[in-house]
Amino acid sequence: MPRDLTRTTVGIVGAGPAGLMLSHLLAREGIRSVVVDHRTRAQIEGTSRAGILEADSVRLLTDTGVSDRVLRDGERHDGIELRFRGAGHRVDFRGLVGESVWLYPQTDVFTDLADARERDGADVRFGITGTRVVDLTTESPGILFDGADGRPCEVRCDILVGADGAHGVSRTAVPEASRTHYFRAYPFAWFGILVEAPPSAAELVYTHSERGFALISRRTDTVQRMYFQCDPDENPADWSEDRIWTELQARVAGPDGFALKEGPVTDRSVLRFRSLVCDPMRYGNMLLAGDAAHTVPPTGAKGLNLALADVRVLAEAVEAAVRTRDRAVLDTYGPRALRRVWRAQHFSYWMTSMLHRHPDTGDFDTHRQLGELAAVTDSAAGSTYLAEAYTGCGAFSSM
Amino acid sequence: MPRDLTRTTVGIVGAGPAGLMLSHLLAREGIRSVVVDHRTRAQIEGTSRAGILEADSVRLLTDTGVSDRVLRDGERHDGIELRFRGAGHRVDFRGLVGESVWLYPQTDVFTDLADARERDGADVRFGITGTRVVDLTTESPGILFDGADGRPCEVRCDILVGADGAHGVSRTAVPEASRTHYFRAYPFAWFGILVEAPPSAAELVYTHSERGFALISRRTDTVQRMYFQCDPDENPADWSEDRIWTELQARVAGPDGFALKEGPVTDRSVLRFRSLVCDPMRYGNMLLAGDAAHTVPPTGAKGLNLALADVRVLAEAVEAAVRTRDRAVLDTYGPRALRRVWRAQHFSYWMTSMLHRHPDTGDFDTHRQLGELAAVTDSAAGSTYLAEAYTGCGAFSSM
Repeated sequence: MPRDLTRTTVGIVGAGPAGLMLSHLLAREGIRSVVVDHRTRAQIEGTSRAGILEADSVRLLTDTGVSDRVLRDGERHDGIELRFRGAGHRVDFRGLVGESVWLYPQTDVFTDLADARERDGADVRFGITGTRVVDLTTESPGILFDGADGRPCEVRCDILVGADGAHGVSRTAVPEASRTHYFRAYPFAWFGILVEAPPSAAELVYTHSERGFALISRRTDTVQRMYFQCDPDENPADWSEDRIWTELQARVAGPDGFALKEGPVTDRSVLRFRSLVCDPMRYGNMLLAGDAAHTVPPTGAKGLNLALADVRVLAEAVEAAVRTRDRAVLDTYGPRALRRVWRAQHFSYWMTSMLHRHPDTGDFDTHRQLGELAAVTDSAAGSTYLAEAYTGCGAFSSM
Repeated sequence: MPRDLTRTTVGIVGAGPAGLMLSHLLAREGIRSVVVDHRTRAQIEGTSRAGILEADSVRLLTDTGVSDRVLRDGERHDGIELRFRGAGHRVDFRGLVGESVWLYPQTDVFTDLADARERDGADVRFGITGTRVVDLTTESPGILFDGADGRPCEVRCDILVGADGAHGVSRTAVPEASRTHYFRAYPFAWFGILVEAPPSAAELVYTHSERGFALISRRTDTVQRMYFQCDPDENPADWSEDRIWTELQARVAGPDGFALKEGPVTDRSVLRFRSLVCDPMRYGNMLLAGDAAHTVPPTGAKGLNLALADVRVLAEAVEAAVRTRDRAVLDTYGPRALRRVWRAQHFSYWMTSMLHRHPDTGDFDTHRQLGELAAVTDSAAGSTYLAEAYTGCGAFSSM
């Protein structure tokens, strides 16, 4: 069977928020692209993914005409609660830095973007198999794959973008000698559950406890998301609902009587996490974006925001390269993106290390963490510094 | 030879700044004390000790009539420089929080206090030997020792205070079952030198470098103090002056051409350090203060300030206990002091971990640190949070 050959300007591997948003931004500049993904639309939409959007991410969605559904269906959060020593301490984002974040699942961001791309007649191919990226250091890199109908396909482009996530084919197609992986492992994981119950709190509750971290998050008025720190080798099947609730309630308990509203646990999983940065973000004429280039611990809610920030910068570099017919300008993308990436890496590390129990370093660090949490919440400057990073404003805004 | 017996209200082991300042504060309330130290005055004054005084520490010295020499001979510093990626970034304490710190050696603080105590006719005995603290859980705890003249002495008191430093006899006199040691080791040390040279910079320069931390501090117009991170097992004798200067210059070098003014190295030593907190700070009728109760890494310059803050709180508790003839009020001291101690422990840990090279965690952390340093120095809130902690104001002031 002869290959079905498509020529385009930008070939994009991965139809997650990074890949689709890039395709959308390029289309607004009149630049053609093809996006491919091995998952079907239904598979992506069937995967529950949380999401906290920085104000800049929300503006990117609304200002570029993707959708204003985030403003209608998303939930604006003007702060978070840091809970320690059994008492809540609110960090008032709106009061401190005049910004908010939006609780809006990544799954919905995807749907908005996929709808927008379909509306604009984009070439987005879901459900493909056998993806390979080839000829990356040539003038005409390519994506080889079998289409959803089984037909062998080939996309040839001027610029290839790997936006296929932490486990995609793009990053590993870069020879090891041509990339440095900066990596940090953590000696714990999150036990995550979905619960059929009303919300236990109006805003997200980040809890430091001698038993370990817990995060009380939200989905809807009837479904809630909660996490608690666990051993990376924990087996979800070992946890009865009773045991889960006993542990979660113990972590958030305090003299103020705060307690979680319980309900049937409809989903449970153990999320391992790590910090990773791949540098450079360019190899030949392939550029990496989003989780394909870097992953952060979930504690700072930065993953999706970094992916969107990447492609905002990348779209500018690609537009300049296409306009000037000079791919040298693509070299500006990585360093610009990495400035933000490393700040977000630090913030995610900071939130993680401030709130989790460290199995190796013991009680000194527990008390030191409590000293830090008291200082951050007592100090307007400390709270503002955290609020800037969490909302992505001030020194943490687009650079 | 019969023991020379002295009865007093407060017996104080250790005539460093904590012990002498406590004795001074108690005298102002009409409370008698005896202070003993195994060192001679000349020995203490001959030990070169650095010192950065928070504004509260300066006010404590001047407002209680110890001396205003700190204001004349001390050097007011309105900021520090954080140096990374070969460029300096000033943190403007005065502009950010309206406070300054004073460069004034601990040795001079000691001299001022010893002079003031002598002026006021206090009973301070230097050069004693064989110190023991006894009967700590009784109504009449005691200090047994041989006086400078070899005569056996005994001081009996209502309240005993251990202010004899990290290696003194007081803390170890507390049975292990009655104290918790919170402890953290660091996988590095400081190589410290004294140099005969003019100052290289107007303010202290805290330097992050891929070769490790360096601190360019000051003593006088002709003598400077500098430190650089080294292995804890480093042997000072292995370092020629040439090798020292090559290493120090490499750590501070940058495109801005900053270079250290070199000169003869008159003193060199390796300083190991650790974080330690002993809780509770009371055992029977003995209370611990300053380094006897807690030690911090030197990076935040908090050790001397914490010692002075301890005895300010302790003097209040002792005064209340003497006035009400009820020692129960002594229990308020530890928890009050520890709130500040744990914030200072965190700050010292933070400055240490932000600026040092971590031999175990590798390049990820180097880049993360650079992301943090950029965020802290770019953000007015981040810089203010650091300035509050360094100067000891705002959320970090006396509690």
